[in-house]
Amino acid sequence: MVVTVLSGKSIKIKGQPIADGKHPLICAPLVATNEVALVAEASRLVAKSPELIEWRVDFFDQIDNSAAVIAAAGKIKATIGDIPLLFTRRAEHEGGEVIGLAEEQVVAMYADVLASGCIDLIDYELSHQPAYVSRVTELAKQYETPLILSYHNFQQTPSVDEIVARLLAAEAAGADVAKVAVMPNSKKDVLNLLAATEAASNRLSIPLITMSMGAFGALSRLIGGAFGSAVTFAVGETSSAPGQMAIEDVDAVLNILHRNVEAD
Amino acid sequence: MVVTVLSGKSIKIKGQPIADGKHPLICAPLVATNEVALVAEASRLVAKSPELIEWRVDFFDQIDNSAAVIAAAGKIKATIGDIPLLFTRRAEHEGGEVIGLAEEQVVAMYADVLASGCIDLIDYELSHQPAYVSRVTELAKQYETPLILSYHNFQQTPSVDEIVARLLAAEAAGADVAKVAVMPNSKKDVLNLLAATEAASNRLSIPLITMSMGAFGALSRLIGGAFGSAVTFAVGETSSAPGQMAIEDVDAVLNILHRNVEAD
Repeated sequence: MVVTVLSGKSIKIKGQPIADGKHPLICAPLVATNEVALVAEASRLVAKSPELIEWRVDFFDQIDNSAAVIAAAGKIKATIGDIPLLFTRRAEHEGGEVIGLAEEQVVAMYADVLASGCIDLIDYELSHQPAYVSRVTELAKQYETPLILSYHNFQQTPSVDEIVARLLAAEAAGADVAKVAVMPNSKKDVLNLLAATEAASNRLSIPLITMSMGAFGALSRLIGGAFGSAVTFAVGETSSAPGQMAIEDVDAVLNILHRNVEAD
Repeated sequence: MVVTVLSGKSIKIKGQPIADGKHPLICAPLVATNEVALVAEASRLVAKSPELIEWRVDFFDQIDNSAAVIAAAGKIKATIGDIPLLFTRRAEHEGGEVIGLAEEQVVAMYADVLASGCIDLIDYELSHQPAYVSRVTELAKQYETPLILSYHNFQQTPSVDEIVARLLAAEAAGADVAKVAVMPNSKKDVLNLLAATEAASNRLSIPLITMSMGAFGALSRLIGGAFGSAVTFAVGETSSAPGQMAIEDVDAVLNILHRNVEAD
Protein backbone atom coordinates (compact mmCIF):
# COMPACT_ATOMS: atom_id res chain seq x y z
CA MET A 1 0.00 0.00 0.00
CA VAL A 2 1.41 3.36 -1.01
CA VAL A 3 -0.28 6.22 0.76
CA THR A 4 0.56 9.86 0.84
CA VAL A 5 -0.50 10.49 4.36
CA LEU A 6 0.13 14.12 4.99
CA SER A 7 -1.37 15.72 1.95
CA GLY A 8 -4.77 17.11 1.19
CA LYS A 9 -6.69 19.87 -0.54
CA SER A 10 -4.94 23.21 -0.07
CA ILE A 11 -6.52 26.41 1.17
CA LYS A 12 -5.84 29.02 -1.50
CA ILE A 13 -5.74 32.81 -1.41
CA LYS A 14 -6.20 34.37 -4.84
CA GLY A 15 -5.38 31.00 -6.41
CA GLN A 16 -2.16 30.45 -4.45
CA PRO A 17 -1.99 27.65 -1.87
CA ILE A 18 -0.96 28.95 1.55
CA ALA A 19 2.63 27.97 2.49
CA ASP A 20 3.08 26.22 -0.88
CA GLY A 21 0.40 23.68 0.02
CA LYS A 22 1.97 22.45 3.28
CA HIS A 23 -0.40 19.98 4.95
CA PRO A 24 -1.61 20.56 7.57
CA LEU A 25 -1.03 24.27 8.16
CA ILE A 26 -0.36 25.41 11.72
CA CYS A 27 -2.62 28.30 12.71
CA ALA A 28 -1.99 30.34 15.86
CA PRO A 29 -4.65 32.53 17.50
CA LEU A 30 -4.37 36.20 18.50
CA VAL A 31 -6.51 36.89 21.55
CA ALA A 32 -5.28 40.25 22.91
CA THR A 33 -7.92 42.86 23.73
CA ASN A 34 -6.44 46.05 22.26
CA GLU A 35 -4.32 47.19 19.34
CA VAL A 36 -1.06 47.69 21.23
CA ALA A 37 -1.30 44.28 22.86
CA LEU A 38 -2.34 42.66 19.56
CA VAL A 39 0.72 44.02 17.77
CA ALA A 40 2.97 42.80 20.57
CA GLU A 41 1.28 39.38 20.56
CA ALA A 42 1.54 39.18 16.76
CA SER A 43 5.20 40.10 16.89
CA ARG A 44 5.96 37.26 19.32
CA LEU A 45 3.88 34.84 17.22
CA VAL A 46 5.81 35.63 14.04
CA ALA A 47 8.98 34.37 15.72
CA LYS A 48 7.33 30.93 15.93
CA SER A 49 6.54 30.83 12.20
CA PRO A 50 2.95 29.63 12.04
CA GLU A 51 1.59 29.32 8.48
CA LEU A 52 -1.60 31.16 9.40
CA ILE A 53 -2.64 33.59 12.15
CA GLU A 54 -6.23 33.88 13.36
CA TRP A 55 -7.41 37.09 14.94
CA ARG A 56 -10.20 36.22 17.35
CA VAL A 57 -11.82 39.63 17.15
CA ASP A 58 -14.44 38.70 19.75
CA PHE A 59 -11.67 39.34 22.34
CA PHE A 60 -11.09 42.89 20.96
CA ASP A 61 -12.42 45.62 23.24
CA GLN A 62 -13.38 47.90 20.30
CA ILE A 63 -15.24 45.27 18.29
CA ASP A 64 -18.18 47.72 18.10
CA ASN A 65 -16.03 50.21 16.13
CA SER A 66 -15.33 49.05 12.57
CA ALA A 67 -12.73 51.75 12.02
CA ALA A 68 -10.81 50.58 15.10
CA VAL A 69 -11.10 46.95 13.97
CA ILE A 70 -9.75 47.84 10.51
CA ALA A 71 -6.95 49.94 11.97
CA ALA A 72 -5.91 47.08 14.28
CA ALA A 73 -6.09 44.57 11.41
CA GLY A 74 -3.80 46.83 9.40
CA LYS A 75 -1.28 47.02 12.23
CA ILE A 76 -1.43 43.23 12.66
CA LYS A 77 -0.90 42.72 8.91
CA ALA A 78 2.09 45.08 8.97
CA THR A 79 3.53 42.98 11.81
CA ILE A 80 2.96 39.49 10.41
CA GLY A 81 4.10 40.25 6.84
CA ASP A 82 3.48 37.33 4.50
CA ILE A 83 1.61 35.17 7.02
CA PRO A 84 -2.08 35.22 6.02
CA LEU A 85 -4.52 36.69 8.54
CA LEU A 86 -7.72 34.82 9.29
CA PHE A 87 -10.44 37.06 10.75
CA THR A 88 -12.85 35.38 13.17
CA ARG A 89 -15.61 36.60 15.41
CA ARG A 90 -16.41 33.39 17.29
CA ALA A 91 -20.04 33.57 18.41
CA GLU A 92 -20.79 33.15 22.08
CA HIS A 93 -23.02 30.12 21.47
CA GLU A 94 -20.07 28.40 19.75
CA GLY A 95 -17.46 29.11 22.41
CA GLY A 96 -16.63 32.77 21.71
CA GLU A 97 -16.51 35.79 23.99
CA VAL A 98 -19.54 37.83 24.98
CA ILE A 99 -19.73 40.94 22.78
CA GLY A 100 -22.11 43.90 22.68
CA LEU A 101 -23.17 43.53 19.04
CA ALA A 102 -26.34 42.09 17.59
CA GLU A 103 -25.75 39.64 14.75
CA GLU A 104 -26.84 42.23 12.17
CA GLN A 105 -24.13 44.56 13.47
CA VAL A 106 -21.56 41.76 13.31
CA VAL A 107 -22.42 41.18 9.66
CA ALA A 108 -22.13 44.92 8.98
CA MET A 109 -18.69 44.90 10.67
CA TYR A 110 -17.67 41.88 8.54
CA ALA A 111 -18.74 43.89 5.46
CA ASP A 112 -16.57 46.84 6.50
CA VAL A 113 -13.57 44.63 7.24
CA LEU A 114 -13.90 42.70 3.96
CA ALA A 115 -14.24 45.93 1.99
CA SER A 116 -11.08 47.31 3.62
CA GLY A 117 -9.00 44.48 2.15
CA CYS A 118 -7.02 44.23 5.39
CA ILE A 119 -7.61 40.53 6.06
CA ASP A 120 -6.91 37.37 4.03
CA LEU A 121 -9.53 34.83 5.15
CA ILE A 122 -12.71 34.99 7.19
CA ASP A 123 -14.63 32.58 9.46
CA TYR A 124 -18.38 32.61 10.11
CA GLU A 125 -20.58 30.08 11.87
CA LEU A 126 -23.07 28.12 9.79
CA SER A 127 -25.47 28.18 12.76
CA HIS A 128 -26.55 31.79 12.14
CA GLN A 129 -29.75 32.68 10.31
CA PRO A 130 -29.50 31.66 6.64
CA ALA A 131 -29.87 35.29 5.55
CA TYR A 132 -26.73 36.24 7.50
CA VAL A 133 -24.80 33.23 6.21
CA SER A 134 -25.80 34.15 2.64
CA ARG A 135 -24.82 37.77 3.14
CA VAL A 136 -21.35 36.88 4.53
CA THR A 137 -20.88 34.36 1.73
CA GLU A 138 -21.74 36.98 -0.90
CA LEU A 139 -19.42 39.53 0.70
CA ALA A 140 -16.55 37.05 0.84
CA LYS A 141 -17.02 36.26 -2.85
CA GLN A 142 -17.31 39.96 -3.74
CA TYR A 143 -14.03 40.73 -2.01
CA GLU A 144 -12.34 37.48 -3.12
CA THR A 145 -11.66 36.47 0.47
CA PRO A 146 -11.78 32.73 1.25
CA LEU A 147 -14.62 31.92 3.65
CA ILE A 148 -14.55 29.24 6.35
CA LEU A 149 -18.06 28.18 7.39
CA SER A 150 -17.73 26.58 10.80
CA TYR A 151 -19.54 24.48 13.40
CA HIS A 152 -18.44 24.10 17.03
CA ASN A 153 -19.87 21.87 19.72
CA PHE A 154 -18.30 22.22 23.18
CA GLN A 155 -20.63 19.64 24.74
CA GLN A 156 -20.29 16.53 22.65
CA THR A 157 -19.24 14.80 19.43
CA PRO A 158 -22.12 14.18 17.03
CA SER A 159 -22.27 10.91 15.07
CA VAL A 160 -19.92 10.34 12.13
CA ASP A 161 -22.82 10.89 9.73
CA GLU A 162 -23.83 14.16 11.38
CA ILE A 163 -20.28 15.53 11.30
CA VAL A 164 -20.00 14.64 7.61
CA ALA A 165 -23.41 16.25 6.98
CA ARG A 166 -22.28 19.49 8.64
CA LEU A 167 -19.14 19.64 6.51
CA LEU A 168 -21.20 18.98 3.37
CA ALA A 169 -23.67 21.69 4.46
CA ALA A 170 -20.83 24.21 4.70
CA GLU A 171 -19.78 23.39 1.15
CA ALA A 172 -23.37 23.61 -0.07
CA ALA A 173 -23.74 27.03 1.57
CA GLY A 174 -20.81 28.34 -0.46
CA ALA A 175 -17.85 27.91 1.88
CA ASP A 176 -14.32 27.80 0.51
CA VAL A 177 -13.34 25.78 3.59
CA ALA A 178 -15.56 23.68 5.90
CA LYS A 179 -14.73 23.50 9.63
CA VAL A 180 -15.99 21.34 12.50
CA ALA A 181 -14.67 21.41 16.09
CA VAL A 182 -16.28 19.10 18.64
CA MET A 183 -15.80 17.94 22.21
CA PRO A 184 -15.18 14.25 22.90
CA ASN A 185 -16.76 12.50 25.87
CA SER A 186 -14.87 9.26 25.19
CA LYS A 187 -11.83 8.04 23.32
CA LYS A 188 -14.18 6.57 20.69
CA ASP A 189 -15.47 10.11 20.02
CA VAL A 190 -11.98 11.15 18.92
CA LEU A 191 -11.81 8.18 16.52
CA ASN A 192 -15.28 9.10 15.23
CA LEU A 193 -14.15 12.67 14.50
CA LEU A 194 -11.17 11.29 12.58
CA ALA A 195 -13.36 8.80 10.69
CA ALA A 196 -15.75 11.61 9.75
CA THR A 197 -12.81 13.72 8.60
CA GLU A 198 -11.55 10.93 6.39
CA ALA A 199 -15.00 10.22 4.95
CA ALA A 200 -15.73 13.92 4.32
CA SER A 201 -12.37 14.57 2.72
CA ASN A 202 -13.31 12.01 0.06
CA ARG A 203 -16.68 13.68 -0.56
CA LEU A 204 -16.01 17.41 -0.38
CA SER A 205 -14.36 19.30 -3.21
CA ILE A 206 -13.16 22.00 -0.79
CA PRO A 207 -10.55 21.72 2.00
CA LEU A 208 -11.79 20.99 5.48
CA ILE A 209 -10.62 21.65 9.02
CA THR A 210 -11.63 19.41 11.91
CA MET A 211 -10.58 18.87 15.47
CA SER A 212 -11.56 17.12 18.63
CA MET A 213 -11.11 19.50 21.58
CA GLY A 214 -10.02 19.08 25.19
CA ALA A 215 -7.30 16.99 26.81
CA PHE A 216 -7.87 13.78 24.93
CA GLY A 217 -9.00 15.38 21.68
CA ALA A 218 -5.57 17.02 21.56
CA LEU A 219 -4.44 13.85 19.75
CA SER A 220 -6.51 14.99 16.76
CA ARG A 221 -4.52 18.22 16.60
CA LEU A 222 -1.46 16.08 15.87
CA ILE A 223 -2.83 13.42 13.52
CA GLY A 224 -5.92 15.09 12.03
CA GLY A 225 -3.87 16.13 9.01
CA ALA A 226 -3.30 12.49 8.16
CA PHE A 227 -7.07 12.05 7.87
CA GLY A 228 -7.61 15.18 5.79
CA SER A 229 -7.75 18.21 8.08
CA ALA A 230 -6.00 21.13 6.36
CA VAL A 231 -5.28 23.19 9.48
CA THR A 232 -4.29 22.50 13.08
CA PHE A 233 -4.59 25.24 15.68
CA ALA A 234 -1.64 25.61 18.03
CA VAL A 235 -0.68 28.07 20.71
CA GLY A 236 1.83 30.86 20.39
CA GLU A 237 1.32 31.98 23.94
CA THR A 238 -2.37 31.96 24.82
CA SER A 239 -4.79 29.27 23.72
CA SER A 240 -8.17 30.13 22.22
CA ALA A 241 -9.77 26.71 22.72
CA PRO A 242 -9.27 23.72 25.02
CA GLY A 243 -6.58 21.23 24.04
CA GLN A 244 -4.40 23.49 21.91
CA MET A 245 -0.68 22.70 22.27
CA ALA A 246 2.43 24.80 21.78
CA ILE A 247 3.39 25.47 18.16
CA GLU A 248 6.84 23.96 18.82
CA ASP A 249 5.31 20.65 19.96
CA VAL A 250 2.86 20.41 17.06
CA ASP A 251 5.60 21.32 14.59
CA ALA A 252 7.93 18.67 16.04
CA VAL A 253 5.30 15.94 15.72
CA LEU A 254 4.31 17.00 12.19
CA ASN A 255 7.96 16.87 11.12
CA ILE A 256 8.25 13.34 12.51
CA LEU A 257 5.04 12.31 10.73
CA HIS A 258 6.25 13.83 7.45
CA ARG A 259 9.57 12.01 7.79
CA ASN A 260 8.17 8.62 8.75
CA VAL A 261 4.56 8.10 7.95
CA GLU A 262 4.78 9.34 4.40
CA ALA A 263 7.96 7.44 3.67
CA ASP A 264 6.65 4.30 1.92
CA MET B 1 -13.55 15.61 31.07
CA VAL B 2 -10.46 14.47 32.94
CA VAL B 3 -8.69 11.64 31.18
CA THR B 4 -5.41 10.02 31.93
CA VAL B 5 -4.47 9.33 28.39
CA LEU B 6 -1.13 7.64 28.51
CA SER B 7 -1.64 5.05 31.17
CA GLY B 8 -2.70 1.44 31.08
CA LYS B 9 -2.16 -1.98 32.56
CA SER B 10 1.55 -2.64 33.11
CA ILE B 11 3.50 -5.65 31.95
CA LYS B 12 5.10 -7.14 35.03
CA ILE B 13 8.11 -9.38 35.54
CA LYS B 14 8.05 -11.22 38.88
CA GLY B 15 5.45 -8.73 40.08
CA GLN B 16 7.42 -5.62 39.13
CA PRO B 17 6.10 -3.37 36.34
CA ILE B 18 8.68 -2.87 33.61
CA ALA B 19 10.21 0.65 33.66
CA ASP B 20 8.13 1.57 36.71
CA GLY B 21 4.93 1.22 34.69
CA LYS B 22 5.82 3.68 31.90
CA HIS B 23 3.08 3.60 29.25
CA PRO B 24 3.63 2.70 26.52
CA LEU B 25 6.99 0.96 26.67
CA ILE B 26 9.31 1.29 23.67
CA CYS B 27 10.56 -2.11 22.49
CA ALA B 28 13.43 -2.42 20.00
CA PRO B 29 14.10 -5.58 17.98
CA LEU B 30 17.38 -7.49 17.66
CA VAL B 31 17.65 -9.13 14.25
CA ALA B 32 21.31 -10.06 13.81
CA THR B 33 22.09 -13.60 12.62
CA ASN B 34 24.95 -14.63 14.92
CA GLU B 35 26.15 -14.12 18.47
CA VAL B 36 28.93 -11.64 17.72
CA ALA B 37 26.64 -9.49 15.60
CA LEU B 38 23.83 -9.76 18.18
CA VAL B 39 26.08 -8.51 20.98
CA ALA B 40 27.22 -5.60 18.81
CA GLU B 41 23.62 -4.79 17.84
CA ALA B 42 22.50 -5.04 21.48
CA SER B 43 25.31 -2.76 22.57
CA ARG B 44 24.26 -0.06 20.10
CA LEU B 45 20.60 -0.47 21.12
CA VAL B 46 21.35 0.05 24.80
CA ALA B 47 22.65 3.52 23.97
CA LYS B 48 19.15 4.42 22.78
CA SER B 49 17.53 3.32 26.06
CA PRO B 50 14.52 1.27 24.96
CA GLU B 51 12.47 -0.11 27.87
CA LEU B 52 12.36 -3.58 26.33
CA ILE B 53 14.47 -5.47 23.77
CA GLU B 54 13.04 -8.25 21.62
CA TRP B 55 15.33 -10.92 20.24
CA ARG B 56 13.80 -12.18 17.02
CA VAL B 57 15.46 -15.57 17.22
CA ASP B 58 14.04 -16.63 13.85
CA PHE B 59 16.85 -14.51 12.33
CA PHE B 60 19.51 -16.46 14.30
CA ASP B 61 21.55 -18.86 12.16
CA GLN B 62 21.91 -21.41 14.97
CA ILE B 63 18.25 -21.54 15.95
CA ASP B 64 18.43 -25.34 15.60
CA ASN B 65 20.96 -25.52 18.45
CA SER B 66 19.39 -24.76 21.84
CA ALA B 67 22.79 -24.51 23.54
CA ALA B 68 23.87 -21.86 21.03
CA VAL B 69 20.57 -20.00 21.48
CA ILE B 70 20.98 -20.02 25.27
CA ALA B 71 24.61 -18.93 25.04
CA ALA B 72 23.68 -16.04 22.75
CA ALA B 73 20.79 -15.04 25.03
CA GLY B 74 23.23 -14.97 27.95
CA LYS B 75 25.60 -12.70 26.03
CA ILE B 76 22.74 -10.43 25.06
CA LYS B 77 21.54 -10.25 28.67
CA ALA B 78 25.04 -9.39 29.85
CA THR B 79 25.09 -6.58 27.30
CA ILE B 80 21.66 -5.06 27.95
CA GLY B 81 21.84 -5.18 31.75
CA ASP B 82 18.54 -4.19 33.36
CA ILE B 83 16.57 -3.93 30.11
CA PRO B 84 14.24 -6.96 29.97
CA LEU B 85 14.76 -9.39 27.08
CA LEU B 86 11.72 -10.59 25.14
CA PHE B 87 12.37 -13.84 23.29
CA THR B 88 10.41 -14.31 20.06
CA ARG B 89 10.49 -16.88 17.29
CA ARG B 90 8.11 -15.24 14.82
CA ALA B 91 6.54 -18.00 12.72
CA GLU B 92 6.89 -17.77 8.95
CA HIS B 93 3.11 -17.71 8.45
CA GLU B 94 2.94 -14.63 10.69
CA GLY B 95 5.73 -12.67 9.05
CA GLY B 96 8.81 -14.37 10.49
CA GLU B 97 11.89 -15.81 8.81
CA VAL B 98 12.06 -19.27 7.28
CA ILE B 99 13.70 -21.66 9.76
CA GLY B 100 14.62 -25.33 9.58
CA LEU B 101 12.68 -26.47 12.62
CA ALA B 102 9.35 -28.24 12.85
CA GLU B 103 6.95 -26.68 15.36
CA GLU B 104 7.59 -29.50 17.83
CA GLN B 105 11.28 -28.64 17.75
CA VAL B 106 10.50 -24.95 18.25
CA VAL B 107 8.50 -25.80 21.37
CA ALA B 108 11.36 -27.98 22.65
CA MET B 109 13.77 -25.09 22.05
CA TYR B 110 11.38 -22.74 23.93
CA ALA B 111 11.42 -25.26 26.81
CA ASP B 112 15.22 -25.25 26.90
CA VAL B 113 15.40 -21.46 26.77
CA LEU B 114 12.77 -21.00 29.49
CA ALA B 115 14.49 -23.57 31.71
CA SER B 116 17.80 -21.75 31.32
CA GLY B 117 16.35 -18.59 32.91
CA CYS B 118 18.23 -16.43 30.42
CA ILE B 119 15.23 -14.50 29.07
CA ASP B 120 12.59 -12.31 30.74
CA LEU B 121 9.51 -12.60 28.53
CA ILE B 122 8.44 -14.85 25.68
CA ASP B 123 6.16 -14.51 22.62
CA TYR B 124 4.29 -17.33 20.91
CA GLU B 125 1.60 -17.21 18.21
CA LEU B 126 -1.92 -18.22 19.16
CA SER B 127 -2.35 -19.70 15.66
CA HIS B 128 -0.34 -22.84 16.44
CA GLN B 129 -1.99 -26.14 17.34
CA PRO B 130 -3.70 -25.85 20.75
CA ALA B 131 -1.43 -28.53 22.19
CA TYR B 132 1.63 -26.41 21.41
CA VAL B 133 0.01 -23.26 22.77
CA SER B 134 -0.89 -25.12 25.97
CA ARG B 135 2.61 -26.50 26.31
CA VAL B 136 4.27 -23.10 25.89
CA THR B 137 1.76 -21.57 28.32
CA GLU B 138 2.53 -24.24 30.93
CA LEU B 139 6.26 -23.80 30.46
CA ALA B 140 5.99 -20.02 30.81
CA LYS B 141 4.04 -20.45 34.07
CA GLN B 142 6.46 -23.07 35.35
CA TYR B 143 9.42 -20.76 34.81
CA GLU B 144 7.52 -17.61 35.88
CA THR B 145 8.18 -15.94 32.54
CA PRO B 146 5.45 -13.61 31.23
CA LEU B 147 3.96 -14.94 28.00
CA ILE B 148 2.71 -12.84 25.09
CA LEU B 149 0.24 -14.75 22.92
CA SER B 150 0.19 -13.01 19.56
CA TYR B 151 -1.68 -12.72 16.27
CA HIS B 152 -0.27 -11.10 13.12
CA ASN B 153 -2.00 -10.44 9.83
CA PHE B 154 0.16 -8.93 7.09
CA GLN B 155 -2.67 -8.91 4.54
CA GLN B 156 -5.50 -7.02 6.16
CA THR B 157 -7.20 -5.63 9.24
CA PRO B 158 -10.01 -7.84 10.58
CA SER B 159 -13.20 -6.20 11.91
CA VAL B 160 -13.19 -4.47 15.29
CA ASP B 161 -15.12 -7.40 16.77
CA GLU B 162 -12.66 -9.96 15.40
CA ILE B 163 -9.64 -8.07 16.74
CA VAL B 164 -11.26 -7.85 20.18
CA ALA B 165 -12.10 -11.57 19.98
CA ARG B 166 -8.49 -12.46 19.23
CA LEU B 167 -7.24 -10.44 22.19
CA LEU B 168 -9.84 -12.09 24.44
CA ALA B 169 -8.80 -15.51 23.08
CA ALA B 170 -5.19 -14.84 24.06
CA GLU B 171 -6.27 -14.04 27.61
CA ALA B 172 -8.49 -17.13 27.72
CA ALA B 173 -5.56 -19.29 26.57
CA GLY B 174 -3.50 -18.13 29.54
CA ALA B 175 -1.49 -15.24 28.13
CA ASP B 176 0.01 -12.66 30.45
CA VAL B 177 -0.11 -10.18 27.56
CA ALA B 178 -2.30 -10.26 24.40
CA LYS B 179 -0.85 -8.95 21.12
CA VAL B 180 -2.40 -8.18 17.72
CA ALA B 181 -0.53 -6.68 14.74
CA VAL B 182 -2.46 -6.12 11.51
CA MET B 183 -2.01 -4.50 8.10
CA PRO B 184 -4.32 -1.64 7.11
CA ASN B 185 -5.68 -1.33 3.58
CA SER B 186 -7.32 2.02 4.31
CA LYS B 187 -7.11 4.84 6.80
CA LYS B 188 -10.33 3.55 8.35
CA ASP B 189 -8.54 0.27 9.13
CA VAL B 190 -6.11 2.16 11.36
CA LEU B 191 -9.00 3.78 13.23
CA ASN B 192 -10.64 0.34 13.57
CA LEU B 193 -7.46 -1.10 15.10
CA LEU B 194 -7.42 1.77 17.60
CA ALA B 195 -11.13 1.34 18.37
CA ALA B 196 -10.58 -2.39 18.97
CA THR B 197 -7.64 -1.58 21.24
CA GLU B 198 -9.75 0.78 23.29
CA ALA B 199 -12.65 -1.66 23.51
CA ALA B 200 -10.41 -4.59 24.43
CA SER B 201 -8.48 -2.63 27.04
CA ASN B 202 -11.78 -2.18 28.90
CA ARG B 203 -12.57 -5.90 28.72
CA LEU B 204 -9.26 -7.66 29.31
CA SER B 205 -7.69 -7.97 32.73
CA ILE B 206 -4.21 -8.36 31.19
CA PRO B 207 -2.15 -5.75 29.30
CA LEU B 208 -2.38 -5.74 25.53
CA ILE B 209 -0.17 -4.73 22.64
CA THR B 210 -1.60 -3.69 19.29
CA MET B 211 -0.37 -2.04 16.16
CA SER B 212 -1.34 -1.25 12.63
CA MET B 213 1.62 -1.92 10.33
CA GLY B 214 2.97 -0.30 7.18
CA ALA B 215 3.38 3.32 6.14
CA PHE B 216 0.02 4.59 7.28
CA GLY B 217 -0.35 2.27 10.23
CA ALA B 218 2.79 3.89 11.62
CA LEU B 219 0.46 6.44 13.21
CA SER B 220 -0.71 3.70 15.57
CA ARG B 221 2.85 3.23 16.79
CA LEU B 222 2.70 6.81 18.08
CA ILE B 223 -0.83 7.05 19.49
CA GLY B 224 -1.71 3.40 20.22
CA GLY B 225 -0.63 3.89 23.83
CA ALA B 226 -3.38 6.46 24.27
CA PHE B 227 -5.93 3.78 23.36
CA GLY B 228 -4.43 1.12 25.62
CA SER B 229 -1.49 -0.52 23.86
CA ALA B 230 1.24 -1.21 26.43
CA VAL B 231 4.16 -1.47 24.00
CA THR B 232 5.24 0.25 20.80
CA PHE B 233 7.98 -1.30 18.66
CA ALA B 234 10.61 1.10 17.36
CA VAL B 235 13.84 0.70 15.49
CA GLY B 236 17.31 0.88 16.94
CA GLU B 237 18.93 0.30 13.60
CA THR B 238 17.12 -2.42 11.65
CA SER B 239 13.36 -2.79 11.59
CA SER B 240 11.69 -6.14 12.10
CA ALA B 241 8.28 -5.19 10.67
CA PRO B 242 6.94 -2.61 8.22
CA GLY B 243 6.23 0.86 9.58
CA GLN B 244 8.56 0.85 12.57
CA MET B 245 10.15 4.26 13.23
CA ALA B 246 13.36 5.30 14.91
CA ILE B 247 13.36 5.10 18.71
CA GLU B 248 14.32 8.77 18.90
CA ASP B 249 11.26 9.83 16.88
CA VAL B 250 8.84 7.65 18.85
CA ASP B 251 10.34 8.84 22.12
CA ALA B 252 10.03 12.50 21.07
CA VAL B 253 6.35 12.10 20.19
CA LEU B 254 5.57 10.16 23.38
CA ASN B 255 7.20 12.89 25.45
CA ILE B 256 5.05 15.51 23.71
CA LEU B 257 1.92 13.40 24.31
CA HIS B 258 2.81 12.93 27.97
CA ARG B 259 3.37 16.66 28.37
CA ASN B 260 0.23 17.81 26.55
CA VAL B 261 -2.44 15.23 26.17
CA GLU B 262 -2.42 14.11 29.78
CA ALA B 263 -2.32 17.65 31.13
CA ASP B 264 -5.98 18.24 32.02
